[in-house]
Amino acid sequence: MRAAAEVLSRPMRRRGKELERAIFEAALDQLTSGGFARLTMEGVAGAARTGKAALYRRWASKVELVIDALDSTLPRPDGTPDLGSARDELLLLVEGFVEAMDSRAGGAMQALMAELDHAQAEFFKDFIGQRVTEPTKIAILDILGRGAGRGEVRPGAVTPLVADVVPAMLLYRVKSGGRPIGLGYATELVDEVMVPLIRA
Amino acid sequence: MRAAAEVLSRPMRRRGKELERAIFEAALDQLTSGGFARLTMEGVAGAARTGKAALYRRWASKVELVIDALDSTLPRPDGTPDLGSARDELLLLVEGFVEAMDSRAGGAMQALMAELDHAQAEFFKDFIGQRVTEPTKIAILDILGRGAGRGEVRPGAVTPLVADVVPAMLLYRVKSGGRPIGLGYATELVDEVMVPLIRA
Repeated sequence: MRAAAEVLSRPMRRRGKELERAIFEAALDQLTSGGFARLTMEGVAGAARTGKAALYRRWASKVELVIDALDSTLPRPDGTPDLGSARDELLLLVEGFVEAMDSRAGGAMQALMAELDHAQAEFFKDFIGQRVTEPTKIAILDILGRGAGRGEVRPGAVTPLVADVVPAMLLYRVKSGGRPIGLGYATELVDEVMVPLIRA
Repeated sequence: MRAAAEVLSRPMRRRGKELERAIFEAALDQLTSGGFARLTMEGVAGAARTGKAALYRRWASKVELVIDALDSTLPRPDGTPDLGSARDELLLLVEGFVEAMDSRAGGAMQALMAELDHAQAEFFKDFIGQRVTEPTKIAILDILGRGAGRGEVRPGAVTPLVADVVPAMLLYRVKSGGRPIGLGYATELVDEVMVPLIRA
């Protein structure tokens, strides 16, 4: 029994990506079960069967650890495929967003934002800007530009301000109406707002 | 000297609206100079030359006091006048918003939101919903409906979702770009987004 307990509590010899994956899984588990306030570097180290020192070698604080853990699970927008229609491509993109926001990870992220203090929230906002907001803007501008090339999108609609409408409406929807957003909202947003706004 | 000090520290005999105005002024002064965290019921009572008990008779907490004080200074959207053009009416409304958000009171409100804890922020969000968001939605739907009556606005654009685009974009702008927003943004938002979206 004693030997078994010793084996279980002994740090496992894992390096690089393998250890990192175990740490991220432990961090996300603790985040979704107990929230950010109750998450500790020590708790994550214990759950991942490694030492606290191994965590602090990579992350200066739990905010940075949580950001890296979220980064590892967020889908990477590697561009929307050419579907031959700006409307269909926008719908695919918006539905992907709504699904992510309505998922368990989306809920954890939203709860996290509400829980963070001001300085932590600023740090987190920068992460969201680089990881979510900027790639989304580029993806929408791609869709609009491709549609203008096909002659179905008004060339004057291929602007950063028009590209802001989708993320602005999703943010406003979640701030004012809560979750779940539901896929019906994606269709309404595309057909009632985006299509009239961009059509040639 | 002693008599003068006594007179200054003695509660002034004022009732109803007059006392309320003095309390609101003192609360807003403390809010803009020292922030919400350092504002106390005692400090406001002292600055307004009344007793703490007089404050607690009306407001259960400083959150409620601050909300009433802000409510007393926020402009009341009593509808946008008929200017004969939906574009001009939207521009007037959006410019009014941008000016309010760029004002000293707008700055204090934004700082306040960042400073509040989660439960306080929820309470404050309800106030903003009733005091700002809902009246704005009604004002925009009025403008769109009037424009549809004139034949310049597409009847299909007179919807709550289209009316959300203005507040959503303003919220997104202030969240992602900070202040001041500037009146140029009002013109861009109206001419680059709203006009193409609603025109017949």
